[in-house]
Amino acid sequence: MRQERDLHPQIEARVRESFARQNAMATIGAKLGNVRAGEVEIVIPFDPRFTQQHGFLHAGITAMIVDTACGFAALSLMPPDAAVLTTEFKLNLLAPGQGQRFLARGRVVRPGKKLMVCLGEVFAETDGMPAKQTALMTASMMVIDGATGLSG
Amino acid sequence: MRQERDLHPQIEARVRESFARQNAMATIGAKLGNVRAGEVEIVIPFDPRFTQQHGFLHAGITAMIVDTACGFAALSLMPPDAAVLTTEFKLNLLAPGQGQRFLARGRVVRPGKKLMVCLGEVFAETDGMPAKQTALMTASMMVIDGATGLSG
Amino acid sequence: MRQERDLHPQIEARVRESFARQNAMATIGAKLGNVRAGEVEIVIPFDPRFTQQHGFLHAGITAMIVDTACGFAALSLMPPDAAVLTTEFKLNLLAPGQGQRFLARGRVVRPGKKLMVCLGEVFAETDGMPAKQTALMTASMMVIDGATGLSG
Amino acid sequence: MRQERDLHPQIEARVRESFARQNAMATIGAKLGNVRAGEVEIVIPFDPRFTQQHGFLHAGITAMIVDTACGFAALSLMPPDAAVLTTEFKLNLLAPGQGQRFLARGRVVRPGKKLMVCLGEVFAETDGMPAKQTALMTASMMVIDGATGLSG
Repeated sequence: MRQERDLHPQIEARVRESFARQNAMATIGAKLGNVRAGEVEIVIPFDPRFTQQHGFLHAGITAMIVDTACGFAALSLMPPDAAVLTTEFKLNLLAPGQGQRFLARGRVVRPGKKLMVCLGEVFAETDGMPAKQTALMTASMMVIDGATGLSG
Repeated sequence: MRQERDLHPQIEARVRESFARQNAMATIGAKLGNVRAGEVEIVIPFDPRFTQQHGFLHAGITAMIVDTACGFAALSLMPPDAAVLTTEFKLNLLAPGQGQRFLARGRVVRPGKKLMVCLGEVFAETDGMPAKQTALMTASMMVIDGATGLSG
Repeated sequence: MRQERDLHPQIEARVRESFARQNAMATIGAKLGNVRAGEVEIVIPFDPRFTQQHGFLHAGITAMIVDTACGFAALSLMPPDAAVLTTEFKLNLLAPGQGQRFLARGRVVRPGKKLMVCLGEVFAETDGMPAKQTALMTASMMVIDGATGLSG
Repeated sequence: MRQERDLHPQIEARVRESFARQNAMATIGAKLGNVRAGEVEIVIPFDPRFTQQHGFLHAGITAMIVDTACGFAALSLMPPDAAVLTTEFKLNLLAPGQGQRFLARGRVVRPGKKLMVCLGEVFAETDGMPAKQTALMTASMMVIDGATGLSG
């Protein structure tokens, strides 16, 4: 699906500003990576505070970064007065959350006026090793009123 | 679907021991609630460190507690030498993550030898108010070898 | 979640009229079962024309009847000038599609003004045997304009 | 993800033979398209017998062809004595099922010994028009014993 690859600077500023208001992103040490129209990346370091019983990154953290990447990818294509609300996502876990850092990439595959559908991928990265995909997400993002935040 | 409601004490001990090894659960302040054969509850307090841009609990944390509740519900029905691996989950978000605490309940709806399917629910609780369901999960849990942790 | 259990006769008539316009339902021999506010049932006979390679009912037909049951459950709670559009569903397959007939039940778990979330179940039935659940669905139903059928 | 693109003739024969045993595929007029290692296509004509209430292809038929395409994509990477079982799929509907024919493409994104994860896409095609994607699927395919067909 073709998308505009040049993003208006105000849109990027808006994504970065919304990202900065997500306490959860700061808490897990997340940084915004590339921000393009319809495609956003988020990176986190491995952090032993967020592991499951085998010492791998918890799937909930994987879900958190790729849901957020998908949400911002959707927001980047919305009008300035709109806000974004995740209504559902599905995550297939492809490999253990094992690596030095994790990169989540969200991409809009269906840009709609009321509903956007996104595809998300998460990769584990370790210096000197090829990146390995750990998760695949599909998500629905509803376009809501930015002033009221109401969904209905 | 009928399930054994009386859980062998060793099984409960095993769930509690595995829970204790999840750093992520300690980091978000999670506690195990009821542990029954095929049904497990997890409770967390609201914590402003884990909010999204509107100040609600991030959907990734919602996913984390209900995925974990589903995983332990599955583990409670597995043989002692088995371990559990989430292969996929889907989360429908029903209401904002707004409340004093959140209770996730996971329940096995298809106990299988290789694969268990679970249904999870999350409720926001606030003193003096009725609980409100915030999320609905379906998840697949694979039974893996507890010694090697290999999935294939 | 509380729902109105008494359904206005015009709503039931509307569900039955919309069902009658679905060619696919006639082609697979589907009948409407119970129609309540927020909960609708559909029944089909086993039909060897719709089997997969092992001789069981194809998962696509299972998806068809439970998606439709969920859609009508949502429609039953919508205003008279609205129409319903499935935006996504997930189906977990719990047992083979083996039986004399199949009953799908769709139920609204989140009645919203713009989006309804439904839970669906499918049961295989054989005379003289207990019913067996074969599938579990969660689905999102968007409320759209009944006149234009536009979704955006 | 790299995959072997040259498919052993016996594997292709096996996919075509399994396809031929699916009555549901014959009933809806489906044909196998390209069969590669890890990627399989299925095409159906638009058929008014399988429409929903607005005259578009029913989502259950869309699910049927893309689930089947994903299942055969998985089968193409399995050992000769294995069989394939769909354990779950999710379908996001991107556009109405409107066109002269529909092409479903299934692709393995995680080839595992016990579990394969597939990504599926469906496109509506009309002569003289660009193809339009109507659906996106993610699916889990379990590798089972081909002799007994048991899943556990």
